[in-house]
Formats: sequence, C-alpha cells, structure tokens
Amino acid sequence: MPTTRTFDRYPTRVANEPRIIDRTDPVVAASAREPGAGPLTTEQVDAFERDGLLFLEDVFTKDETDRYLAELHRLSADDELRAQERVITERGTDEVRSIFEIHRVSDLFARMARDARLADVTRQLHGEDVYLHQTRVNFKPGFRGKEFYWHSDFETWHSEDGMPTPRAISASIALTDNTEHNGPLMVMPGSHTRFVSCVGETPDDNYRSSLQAQEVGTPDEDSLSQLAAEFGIVAPKGLAGSVVFFDSNIMHGSNGNITPFARSNAFFVYNAASNALEGPFAASAPRPSHIAHREVEVLPRS
Amino acid sequence: MPTTRTFDRYPTRVANEPRIIDRTDPVVAASAREPGAGPLTTEQVDAFERDGLLFLEDVFTKDETDRYLAELHRLSADDELRAQERVITERGTDEVRSIFEIHRVSDLFARMARDARLADVTRQLHGEDVYLHQTRVNFKPGFRGKEFYWHSDFETWHSEDGMPTPRAISASIALTDNTEHNGPLMVMPGSHTRFVSCVGETPDDNYRSSLQAQEVGTPDEDSLSQLAAEFGIVAPKGLAGSVVFFDSNIMHGSNGNITPFARSNAFFVYNAASNALEGPFAASAPRPSHIAHREVEVLPRS
Repeated sequence: MPTTRTFDRYPTRVANEPRIIDRTDPVVAASAREPGAGPLTTEQVDAFERDGLLFLEDVFTKDETDRYLAELHRLSADDELRAQERVITERGTDEVRSIFEIHRVSDLFARMARDARLADVTRQLHGEDVYLHQTRVNFKPGFRGKEFYWHSDFETWHSEDGMPTPRAISASIALTDNTEHNGPLMVMPGSHTRFVSCVGETPDDNYRSSLQAQEVGTPDEDSLSQLAAEFGIVAPKGLAGSVVFFDSNIMHGSNGNITPFARSNAFFVYNAASNALEGPFAASAPRPSHIAHREVEVLPRS
Repeated sequence: MPTTRTFDRYPTRVANEPRIIDRTDPVVAASAREPGAGPLTTEQVDAFERDGLLFLEDVFTKDETDRYLAELHRLSADDELRAQERVITERGTDEVRSIFEIHRVSDLFARMARDARLADVTRQLHGEDVYLHQTRVNFKPGFRGKEFYWHSDFETWHSEDGMPTPRAISASIALTDNTEHNGPLMVMPGSHTRFVSCVGETPDDNYRSSLQAQEVGTPDEDSLSQLAAEFGIVAPKGLAGSVVFFDSNIMHGSNGNITPFARSNAFFVYNAASNALEGPFAASAPRPSHIAHREVEVLPRS
C-alpha cells in the first residue's frame, strides 16, 4: 500500500484532473554562491536556479569519450549482462535502449560518476554531500532511435521511488556529438518551478514497461502546451564530452533519431544526502534498487 | 507485369545488393540562367543545381498561411473526405497523416498549386512547362507526429509510377512554423547527384502501407551512412509561409515530433511536361491516379 502522509506538497497520480502546482522547495542552496563553494561561478549558479539547466562544453576530452564509447559498445555486446534486469531493450526489438546501475557493472563509468567535474558541481548546487540515486547509459542508435516523451523525472522518483523533494540534479554526459538532427535532449527552461500533477494510478511493476515507453506519469497535453508557451523549448547541442546538468523536476524529452549518427549518453543522478528516499508517494511498492538506489552512499570528496 | 526495357539508367528493387549510381540527367535546364527565364537569380539556380535544394522565406504571407491552415483543419474534420482513399491515416490510429490530390478537393489549395510564386520557379529550373505529378498536405501533429524515414521520392516515382528521369521538383510550403524541434524536413544537400538502388521487390498494392511507413524502396543503412558522410545533413527552418524547393532525387526524411507544435505543410510536385509517366519500372501495376497523376495537364502560365 502507498504510504499515507498527512500532507504531500507534490501530489500526483491521485486525482482525475491534471494540475500545475508551484514548486515550494528551493532550486539551489543558499551556500552555492559563497566563495570556494565549488567550480561554478555565481552567474552559472544564477542560470541554474532560473533555468533549471546548465550546459557546459568540453568537460571531458575526446580521448576520454572515445574510451567511454568503446566501453559502451563492449557492454552492449555482453550477453550475460543483457540477460540482467538492469538492461532495458527497445519495445519490439532486442536492441539495448538503456543499461541501469552502470556504475556497478563498469569501473570506468563508476569513475566517471565520482568525477569531481560532475560531483563537485552538484555538491555546490545542493550545498551538501550527494549520493547516486540512479545511474545509466542510453544508446539511442542511429536510423531507429526512439523518442523519450516529455516528463519530469521527479514526478516518477517521487511517486514510485519515494523521493521527498526535488533536490536531485542529473548530469547527462554526451558520449557522441549532439546535433539538432539526432534527437538531442529538449528541455523547457524554467519549468522546474512548476510541478505537473499527473492523472492515473501507478500499476504494479509499472517500471517494466515505463522504461521502454512511459504511460502513467505522462503529463497531459494541455499542461505541456501551457508550459511550452510560458517557457519555450531549448536543445543544448555540443560535441561529445559536453555535459547538461538539469534539475530533477524540469520538463524534458527528446525526439527520435533517423540520422545515421547515434546519440549516446551517460546519465547520473546526484541526490542531496538529506533527501533520502522514503516509501513511494503513489505506488504500492518501491521500484527495484537497480533503478532507484535506496542506500545513501555518500560520494567521497576529492 | 513490370514493363521490360532494354536499358534503365536508374535500376532499383531488382538486385539483392544495394548500390549507389551516379545521376546522368541534368538537374537544371541550360535555359534556366537566361535573362527573363524566371524569378530566380543565377546564384539561386547555381545553388539548386549544386544542393538539389533551395529555401525561400516569406513566400506566402501570414494572412495566407492562416487561411490555408484553417482550410486544412476544415478538411481534416470532413468525415466524407476521410472515408476516401486519398486520405492516409497514421498507422494504428485514425489521425489524418496526409491528404493526397489536395488540389482536387480544395479550391484554395488548387490556387496555391498554380501560384506563380511556386510554378514559375519550377518552370525556370525545368526550362519548360510543368504539370502536377502529385499534390498533398501533411499534418505531423504535435505530441505524436511520426517520422518519415530517409528516401528519394524519385526512387518510388520511377519504380512504382513510371517516371522516366528525375526531372521533377517538389515544393514544400510551411503552413506552421518549422523549428529545429518539431521534426523539420532534413535533407542531404548534393545527394540528388546519386541514385541509391534499393533491394527488394515491390509487393502488389504496396502504396497502401508504404504511405504510412515505407519498407520496400528504403535505402540501406550503409548507403545512407556514405551519403551522410559525403554530403552532411541540413534542415531548413523558417516561419509559416517559407518554401523548400527540392529535387525529386534528393535524400530526405524527418524525425518525429513530440513538441506541442504541429508541423503541417503543403506539398506539390512539378514534373517537366516532357517527363510524362510510362509504365512502372519495378512494380506490377502503376499506383492509383490520386497518388501519381497520369495525365499531363500543363499548368497555365500566369
């Protein structure tokens, strides 16, 4: 049974009508602008607070991304790994779409997840220690890469994983070049200040299908049209090695990809240590730990 | 039975291996650069010859595109029209994807097809009279617009309709704004100088499924990768009222569209009067006349 709480500031999947709720939690910690707080300038912290988004180019070198990409291909050809639950295939084919808990199956990606170039940014914005809530790699191959429909990650993490507040920051690291043509991440900058309460009830074991194509927890078209009209849509484009940091509650998605050029990325979610998971807010049982890590294993500071 | 000819310079759907053939026919007529030949400058004719593509903005006014868009919505709600073969719905839904022979069902679109701003350009490039080989409107709605996979129109028009040479020019008129986000037309500029011979045999009545999602006549991934490496990919973006003219043999396609913003366009194909259809080059019977007009009805010069 879902945990019953006296008051949930982010109710979702509980009513028949969607609605848009103002976010009450801060986006960045007050300490983020203090001298020595971390690698970001005050302007960058301001931009993240306003947009829910920060795009940095040349974070990783070409040598590094080449190494990561080779590791990605090695993993996707690993039949033993493929048989595990942490590997999600495309609906209707056995092509690998995502590998979850990538930091547990690859030392190389484990190092990337702990890398100060990523973790220090999120520690600065959170003003405290962080741990990995979720890690994965997404493939989006050329010719037939499928779309990811609009969603707020926090909507799912709150309802199905029990994340109390939107104090998680995702880092999406481009392992291949992102162009306007190969289905880059699209976000509505500023939409992290609104919470779209979705309709429907979470079915048991929803994650088994939702990671291929989400149905429950999908925002309604009216809410999406309102957000798009208010905030617009941007798609950061950059070479392999660029990183998009984004707020857990930002509305985002991506189109499919018919170009010959794959759009592969690594995706790490840095949750504030004080924002540990509780019971799910709108699901009968939490999702398995390879999708939502339930232990707070604080990342060591470098 | 397919017409047997002694020599076909653009063989396709006849062998088990794909191959890339150099185009032997000219792209523009010698007369296209003569003074008074038409509205395009010599530089624009050069660009079309080189790229197979010409993008013109502000060809139609906002008032005009608003009127065309209203007509489009009126037609898509017309149940009697919807029951006709000329209306193609999306695979798996009854949402309208395309309406063929639009110049026969709408006086407004018939006027647009004859408009000198379109027809004069194609007459200039062809150096002769033109007629409408195919006309249609495409909807590509917001949220769930489907992709059009890579293809050369001429490959289909040659094999299934019997168009002898790639002397047809398409005009795609934006009825809504085209952005980088809502699945704009992508082309490989220069690819009109290569003909990708496709594998497979045309099934009977292929058009019934191919207009929802093409299978036979689809270029292979190696050929597409080669063309993309040689020519790159561009996607002209512009407000409603802009027009892309493109060569019938250019490799093009478009991604899906999850944004709230529809990408609707009108699409008219101006074939050179001397390039009238023969029997299909690789199909047992020609497609119906609402898809490929078999009568050469020369458009009046204004």
